[in-house]
Amino acid sequence: MIEYRNIRIALLGAGSVGSQVAGLLIEHRDELAARVGTGLDLVGIAVRDPQRPRDPRIPEALYTTDAESLILGADIVIELMGGLEPARELLLLAMNSGADVITANKALLATHGPELFAAAEQVGAQLYYEAAVGGAIPIIRPLRDSLAGDRVERILGIVNGTTNYILDRMHSQGDSVQEALAEAQRLGYAEADPTADVEGFDAAQKAAILASLAFHTAVPLEAVHREGILGITLEQVAAAQRSGFVIKLLAVCERLTDAERGIDGVSARGHPALVPAAHPLASVHGANNAVFLQAEAAGSLMFYGAGAGGLETASAVLGDVVSAARRHVVGGPGVAESTHADLPALPIAMVTTRYQIGMEVLDRPGVLAQIALVLSDHGVSVETVQQTAAGAEAAAPAATRVIGTHAATEAALAATVHALADSEVVSAVTSVLRVEGVS
Amino acid sequence: MIEYRNIRIALLGAGSVGSQVAGLLIEHRDELAARVGTGLDLVGIAVRDPQRPRDPRIPEALYTTDAESLILGADIVIELMGGLEPARELLLLAMNSGADVITANKALLATHGPELFAAAEQVGAQLYYEAAVGGAIPIIRPLRDSLAGDRVERILGIVNGTTNYILDRMHSQGDSVQEALAEAQRLGYAEADPTADVEGFDAAQKAAILASLAFHTAVPLEAVHREGILGITLEQVAAAQRSGFVIKLLAVCERLTDAERGIDGVSARGHPALVPAAHPLASVHGANNAVFLQAEAAGSLMFYGAGAGGLETASAVLGDVVSAARRHVVGGPGVAESTHADLPALPIAMVTTRYQIGMEVLDRPGVLAQIALVLSDHGVSVETVQQTAAGAEAAAPAATRVIGTHAATEAALAATVHALADSEVVSAVTSVLRVEGVS
Repeated sequence: MIEYRNIRIALLGAGSVGSQVAGLLIEHRDELAARVGTGLDLVGIAVRDPQRPRDPRIPEALYTTDAESLILGADIVIELMGGLEPARELLLLAMNSGADVITANKALLATHGPELFAAAEQVGAQLYYEAAVGGAIPIIRPLRDSLAGDRVERILGIVNGTTNYILDRMHSQGDSVQEALAEAQRLGYAEADPTADVEGFDAAQKAAILASLAFHTAVPLEAVHREGILGITLEQVAAAQRSGFVIKLLAVCERLTDAERGIDGVSARGHPALVPAAHPLASVHGANNAVFLQAEAAGSLMFYGAGAGGLETASAVLGDVVSAARRHVVGGPGVAESTHADLPALPIAMVTTRYQIGMEVLDRPGVLAQIALVLSDHGVSVETVQQTAAGAEAAAPAATRVIGTHAATEAALAATVHALADSEVVSAVTSVLRVEGVS
Repeated sequence: MIEYRNIRIALLGAGSVGSQVAGLLIEHRDELAARVGTGLDLVGIAVRDPQRPRDPRIPEALYTTDAESLILGADIVIELMGGLEPARELLLLAMNSGADVITANKALLATHGPELFAAAEQVGAQLYYEAAVGGAIPIIRPLRDSLAGDRVERILGIVNGTTNYILDRMHSQGDSVQEALAEAQRLGYAEADPTADVEGFDAAQKAAILASLAFHTAVPLEAVHREGILGITLEQVAAAQRSGFVIKLLAVCERLTDAERGIDGVSARGHPALVPAAHPLASVHGANNAVFLQAEAAGSLMFYGAGAGGLETASAVLGDVVSAARRHVVGGPGVAESTHADLPALPIAMVTTRYQIGMEVLDRPGVLAQIALVLSDHGVSVETVQQTAAGAEAAAPAATRVIGTHAATEAALAATVHALADSEVVSAVTSVLRVEGVS
């Protein structure tokens, strides 16, 4: 048997994921070597401040501030520093100097994915990113390989643990969004600046990555419609529960075809949505993640697990390390990113969906008829109507109605909501939520 | 760009999965070619009886009874004929003649896996088998690649759709096992001879395959403990539901280490078990499959979807076809099976688990103390005790008790059950079930 020289691994970043990756590379050294067929040497860890106290499993001598020199001597470079720069230029440097690269950086992939994949293809490097979506949950490899012979039709993903924790608390504990956010921050589920999570940027980035992979099409982040959860009220949560739904922040990726409307493309978006209480996604609690997927032949699949956490995410990174290292040992150029389908990423106005529209209306006969007329004027049909008790604070006789629509285009639904707000029988439109997961 | 010649694909078998694979290869021809980078030509389908009416999508000329000649001209051979022979010898012929091979044949892999993997490694062929476990659910690739850097601790899998359908009906409809089996046969979920499913052979084969992969160890089928579901009664189902459990047929794979008892190995088994009603596996209904997995770093993961069905299983086969074909285009020897850990497959007597033991006992004071003494004599402690109404048919005053034990060795639990059956206060041990999914 030929002895292969040890594989040299450089790590960029030693945060919560990075230090776990380094720790596992050191602690599981013999086991990983047996699986790969040769040793894996962690040759250095690039950090900004080498004085900061670090994980006691990791020898001090591994830390360096010179990322470039570290990269130039490595076979595999793992980027876990986050942010767009210098992550982008360091990954390009690594691939151009002959290394395979691994990243968990969803912002970078969603923003500069095409440039990075093109660079990888040009130099024959591999770019792995299992940890970028769904933490420990294998979702990139199943999409890229297992479903490569199928046609993915739709993905509904709970891909942000922070917002799932917040929304779950709102449903189970009755916390307001601000209270639940404060609790998430206290427990370390949300960062001091929670913008990326609660405003839906993280979910939108992951939607772009999943849609690109599922539909063999480069989906630019600018084409991803994004809405956050800070506007979600306890009234919306209560109304959802009364109607048999829960509110989840979803990454939605859809293959859209409609010959009559001349539509042939994909939609990627991240926004809160009503999900039926019996849908598998509805029982994903706490900070967990799950990706629900429908494919032409495979039918419905779901992948569930921890969506974040240093150790959990490190598991996905280590899986990529073993794949990359095995490729070094056995050779072969591996698989390039497939964007052969090259479909247009369609604006959300072209998507067909359902709404639940909550509004305060005058409490008198004929109101429902007038509302139904507004909807039918816009080509939208009513599926369900619910009336709840009049608000105690209302001076005039008033009631709250929730209208559930049949599927219609986003453009028609948005126009309907505008017209309802202008209607004399509607005092206020209080809630507009999309419904997902209903066939 | 270099034009690669088309890849030649031979299919063995044209049953429910085979004809769907052929249909998709023909219908999705252009799309698959774009994903692979070259065309995929289905060059023939070996069948036993070419006169049988077949799928109208497939040209008659493709059928042949000469499997050997077909194989000798192929780059990729897909074996979907089932059974041990001639499947085994045809796969060996294919690999020895330079083809990569794909199979969904769990019986063959569980029985002759080591021989087939050794042959593949020797000639540098690839052996893919994503469809052998969990139908359309990606589970082989996640275990082999995504979790390759982690340590799998335990797998609990609902891997047989037929028995899950039967058990689900017993819980939801109150059918007896025989009634539910008859209904499953009527709907095509169970075969005319249901032995492989209801006696647990299928689950045991899949446990062997999953354990081998998860623990990097060849687990022979003979080492897999197996129990079927035909003995499951409606009384057991009712008792389980009263105690907050459901009964599932599980494939269980565990990494066992206990320095004190000198244990360092793996356990693979397939048997009915009580699963807590709140466990994710408890809500897997109908003929669906799910694999729940715990790994050291990744934590808990679950993979869910359709476990059978011709079209669904064809999705997994096509994923393997694309992987194999890409490897032909880009080259490289791919990944061999890893059995470096080479751990012993331990008998079930060495496994530690919990039991729920149902028994009819005399209804008089002091009986529980005597039962508890029997358990403590065997080093088993009582976790829960439930008494249910006395049987109406009982001549003497009698009652039914269900004892839930703390974790103990199978050997101790088996001895306890024997001693209870011999005890003068116990008229009959009516139910013995293991509990899984409780940490």
